[in-house]
Amino acid sequence: MMSSLVLPPALVPASRRSEVAPFIVMDVMEHAARLEAEGAKVIHMEVGQPAAPAPRTARKAAAAALERGQVGYTAALGIPSLRARIAKHYKEQHGFDLDPERVVVTNGSSGGFILAFLALFEAGDRVAIAAPGYPPYRHVLSALGCEPVLIETKAEDRFALTPETLRAAHAEKPLKGVLVASPANPTGTMMDRTALTALYAAAKELGLRFVSDEIYHGLDYAFPAVTAAEVAPDAVVINSFSKYFCMTGWRVGWMVVPEGMSRTMERLQQNFSISVPTLSQIAAEAAFDGREEMDAVKHGYEENRRILTEGLPKIGLEHFLPADGAFYLYADVSRFTGDSHAFATRLLDAAHVAATPGVDFDPFRGKQFLRFSYAGSAEDMRAAVARIGHFLSKE
Amino acid sequence: MMSSLVLPPALVPASRRSEVAPFIVMDVMEHAARLEAEGAKVIHMEVGQPAAPAPRTARKAAAAALERGQVGYTAALGIPSLRARIAKHYKEQHGFDLDPERVVVTNGSSGGFILAFLALFEAGDRVAIAAPGYPPYRHVLSALGCEPVLIETKAEDRFALTPETLRAAHAEKPLKGVLVASPANPTGTMMDRTALTALYAAAKELGLRFVSDEIYHGLDYAFPAVTAAEVAPDAVVINSFSKYFCMTGWRVGWMVVPEGMSRTMERLQQNFSISVPTLSQIAAEAAFDGREEMDAVKHGYEENRRILTEGLPKIGLEHFLPADGAFYLYADVSRFTGDSHAFATRLLDAAHVAATPGVDFDPFRGKQFLRFSYAGSAEDMRAAVARIGHFLSKE
Repeated sequence: MMSSLVLPPALVPASRRSEVAPFIVMDVMEHAARLEAEGAKVIHMEVGQPAAPAPRTARKAAAAALERGQVGYTAALGIPSLRARIAKHYKEQHGFDLDPERVVVTNGSSGGFILAFLALFEAGDRVAIAAPGYPPYRHVLSALGCEPVLIETKAEDRFALTPETLRAAHAEKPLKGVLVASPANPTGTMMDRTALTALYAAAKELGLRFVSDEIYHGLDYAFPAVTAAEVAPDAVVINSFSKYFCMTGWRVGWMVVPEGMSRTMERLQQNFSISVPTLSQIAAEAAFDGREEMDAVKHGYEENRRILTEGLPKIGLEHFLPADGAFYLYADVSRFTGDSHAFATRLLDAAHVAATPGVDFDPFRGKQFLRFSYAGSAEDMRAAVARIGHFLSKE
Repeated sequence: MMSSLVLPPALVPASRRSEVAPFIVMDVMEHAARLEAEGAKVIHMEVGQPAAPAPRTARKAAAAALERGQVGYTAALGIPSLRARIAKHYKEQHGFDLDPERVVVTNGSSGGFILAFLALFEAGDRVAIAAPGYPPYRHVLSALGCEPVLIETKAEDRFALTPETLRAAHAEKPLKGVLVASPANPTGTMMDRTALTALYAAAKELGLRFVSDEIYHGLDYAFPAVTAAEVAPDAVVINSFSKYFCMTGWRVGWMVVPEGMSRTMERLQQNFSISVPTLSQIAAEAAFDGREEMDAVKHGYEENRRILTEGLPKIGLEHFLPADGAFYLYADVSRFTGDSHAFATRLLDAAHVAATPGVDFDPFRGKQFLRFSYAGSAEDMRAAVARIGHFLSKE
């Protein structure tokens, strides 16, 4: 009976539900690290994180908390003053009142997804997500026993789910929920108020639960991002301090949950996390006082976006999605390749530009796309355009 | 179809699997806070966290990292030098070599349980745990679709699972795994090498996966704690910097996983967390240089333990479990009450001593027990004995 436990390669075989696909981008990152070890100067456009540090106000608050001594657990739902500060942010940014009781502090957006999926869905429930999309959506859903239903999106819909595609998927086999992201990863596209409102109305009509990933809010260039918290009172909204506030490694985010759901989230958080990292919560509260510094970082992304959207077409890369927000440009490279992973490897080897193959995000058309992150410096962006141009001229 | 979504009390009804029981101790803590707001000086013996701060070395390392600027994501399995330092700890503390590849850095022990349960068990799998025991074991297992099988333990077995009780539970209906804790929460009891080895042998014979919660390692008084990593190469061992290293609010822990399981854990962590808080990892690595400071804290607990184990019998509370390790004393109060929750409330109101009713930990006999945490000061422990004595003399 134990024989299966001692067979190579693994001493203990892993469960089926833990067999999620690895990220292809990890191969790219390791490859880039090898080149760098050999002395190459790699431009990193594969990673989805800001190069800038957290706001000075946040770092100062964390340093002061360190000085004070014990860093103990906090309330499971988060430090009350942080929850209140987040609620105030909705008034400041979106102009409506939000009860701080509906704010749940989480371990980054990652922690938010775990709590949201557990609280909203049973095992077996089908949840619609857009393809291309952020890989953990489908991996976390399936590890938690749900069925991610990937809906292929279209360019004319700005690569977002629509009432029609949602209804069609539901008609095929009933859904229980839908998850949207705007600005989206990897596409950088956004849903405007009309699109978000129409999709929510369709979800409501179909009886679906609505989850909105708003982690890239604050990084909107084409038009202002609309929060589902405003148009969908029964949505679960997921956000984070990682992107706009440049706090990736701090692992702190938040959710806005429907009236009456905070107690459920509190019990789940008590059991799954006890509480969110305390220094990160203290820093996060102070981060709201560092918006001027962060807006300067955002203006840097806007300049990077201009360099790429103007520069890439001139070097033969004219097909990419509208770069509405976040810091991603999702480029169609089908003119050059049918295998974006191999293409990304050649680009890295020849031009020392690291980009993420679309296959991580889209099982349907990912082989035709590359994701470029423009969270780096303007100098790097200009150099990248030149390097990619030189590379493409020889492809 | 949507009508169920707009009914009070909750706008969106929570899933069945998220309906875990709240912690009764939260009532006690809120009650204590109310008394304190009215000016009472409450002795807190209900919370399971050290009053001391993290080692100075750890706090200094975190402050230095803050100064350096960007706090980015780390590798999903943890900062390599931290994984190596944890591996070295097993050589120093337990005298055997451990491959750093088998070390996985986690979001406290909480994060370890999520990854371990997902990687080891499918939905529907039955996992044996001891009663009394730490409530999240059963809540996280059931939220992840597994069936926690509570096995009532006995005083003559030091309140631990035994080969006999494990075999009996498996015979009733097959198990897939077993989880042990030593030192245990809430009992403070430990399994010696003979007991742990015998239980592991029985699990192996039955084909069960073995999980060992060692979060209270380092806080052993009666005899040295034995790690399952030494006696059970295919066990998943869960540990944390929260207790011995006084780093509760930092949310950083680790696992030792069987050879060949790190890749599975890496993929799960990438999707469920991206990475563990960076400052906490940096602090954790430096914490190992602060063992002298932490040993002094531990000696404080030993003195507290002496005060309680000598003092409580003199005031009529002579029935408690052997306080082998951790910082808990689990007292049988059945001579005074059949309802430990009501008893804890009276003790708090009358004597301003907060303790945790056993009902959080044990559905069978929890109404007869109270858990006292002795992670506070010696002065508080002496005052607590006096206050409890006065209270009991009037019960």
